[in-house]
Amino acid sequence: MSGWLSIVGLGPGAESMLTPEVAASLAEATDIVGYQPYVERVPARPGLVRHASDNREELQRAQAALRMAAEGRRVAVVSSGDPGVFAMASAIFEALEAGDPAWRTLDIRVLPGISAMLAASARVGAPLGHDFCCINLSDNLKPWALIERRLRLAAEADFAMAFYNPRSRARPEGFARALELLREACGEQRLIVFARAVSTPQEAIKVTSLGAATPEMADMRTLVIVGSSLTRLIERSSGEPLVYTPRSVP
Amino acid sequence: MSGWLSIVGLGPGAESMLTPEVAASLAEATDIVGYQPYVERVPARPGLVRHASDNREELQRAQAALRMAAEGRRVAVVSSGDPGVFAMASAIFEALEAGDPAWRTLDIRVLPGISAMLAASARVGAPLGHDFCCINLSDNLKPWALIERRLRLAAEADFAMAFYNPRSRARPEGFARALELLREACGEQRLIVFARAVSTPQEAIKVTSLGAATPEMADMRTLVIVGSSLTRLIERSSGEPLVYTPRSVP
Repeated sequence: MSGWLSIVGLGPGAESMLTPEVAASLAEATDIVGYQPYVERVPARPGLVRHASDNREELQRAQAALRMAAEGRRVAVVSSGDPGVFAMASAIFEALEAGDPAWRTLDIRVLPGISAMLAASARVGAPLGHDFCCINLSDNLKPWALIERRLRLAAEADFAMAFYNPRSRARPEGFARALELLREACGEQRLIVFARAVSTPQEAIKVTSLGAATPEMADMRTLVIVGSSLTRLIERSSGEPLVYTPRSVP
Repeated sequence: MSGWLSIVGLGPGAESMLTPEVAASLAEATDIVGYQPYVERVPARPGLVRHASDNREELQRAQAALRMAAEGRRVAVVSSGDPGVFAMASAIFEALEAGDPAWRTLDIRVLPGISAMLAASARVGAPLGHDFCCINLSDNLKPWALIERRLRLAAEADFAMAFYNPRSRARPEGFARALELLREACGEQRLIVFARAVSTPQEAIKVTSLGAATPEMADMRTLVIVGSSLTRLIERSSGEPLVYTPRSVP
């Protein structure tokens, strides 16, 4: 039995940001498992089975992937960005811990990818160039009160902040509350970046201040970055401004 | 004048984790600029000038790179990992903001890389699979009191934490104090991962608890990850344990 399970990150979208390590694993796989839009990023080829599933089915998807690897298949579970940041790796390990003890002997590897956070930051400059935090704003799997608590403490620590899943149609009010809280904690002048679908044809970047930010500037494909108190903007005559956080704190 | 400046991430070490986008930029560059060990990762070739400099010379290096790009050279500034995470991108933008106004019209791009944090996380499982923060433990450019304050607030927020530059020969005592503070704030049982030089021949991984951790387990090539209160360990009969943070908070 030579099955294995790789949990790979496809990067933010562009083929040019997918690592050779991940490309090699996809080329050797017999099965691709994941959320439909990500599975579709792996081209079909003879002998490759692509198992596309709906969003919010992470745990069933993880169990199916582990079962197939245990049966001797070479299974690549695909996530956008990095698999370890609000993506499939944790779901696989939850399923592994609760599942068949034999799964623990499987050959399992996590292959990192360029996360949405790093791609968004690079696209505008270096807003995450100093201490920062990364928070999933979805309250599907945690209480909203915890999100607010973390936002307050992150502001108090003066971290730059990267937010995943800022806003969905199912719960549009959460992000409005988060913006309100951040305006109170960080002030109206604080820089905020909306980076949508970086490196894809749908890419859209907006740099503004918390005072001018509105909830509609984000959707589920947007990575939001709020600067620290030291994050700065460099205006340029041509093109968009640059946003960066200096290395030093006076 | 067709000069440009790319600020690129070489990833943690292995060639297989360097993105095609970065490889293409390095192939088109006339000049490679950076800290000596990183510059040496770009093979010499006819016509390529490699400018290696010492550590802690980031600002002079950034100014030199901007000057060369303004003179029409195609300059790639290299960092290990991702250039936007405690690396050269912020130094370039500091030099840009304070320097010759003409530099603002330059063609400047930041090309992300697999950060040490993502590589270390993937290597052991998915300890950064839920909300986390990322702190540079070096007090070269910020007061130590700020580091302690951020550690306390991060523990209060129950973030997983990734630490860069945990310990240098010049200031070995800081990391000992950080461990002490974290033991008090998070308890002796909290999981900690020491991931040294991931994906290189010098790679060394250690998973332990805060209670059993000692300062000597880290050096400047080590990325340290401390779990949240929910971070879990999966024992395996063969090989190292897996460490992951679940997606849900009850």
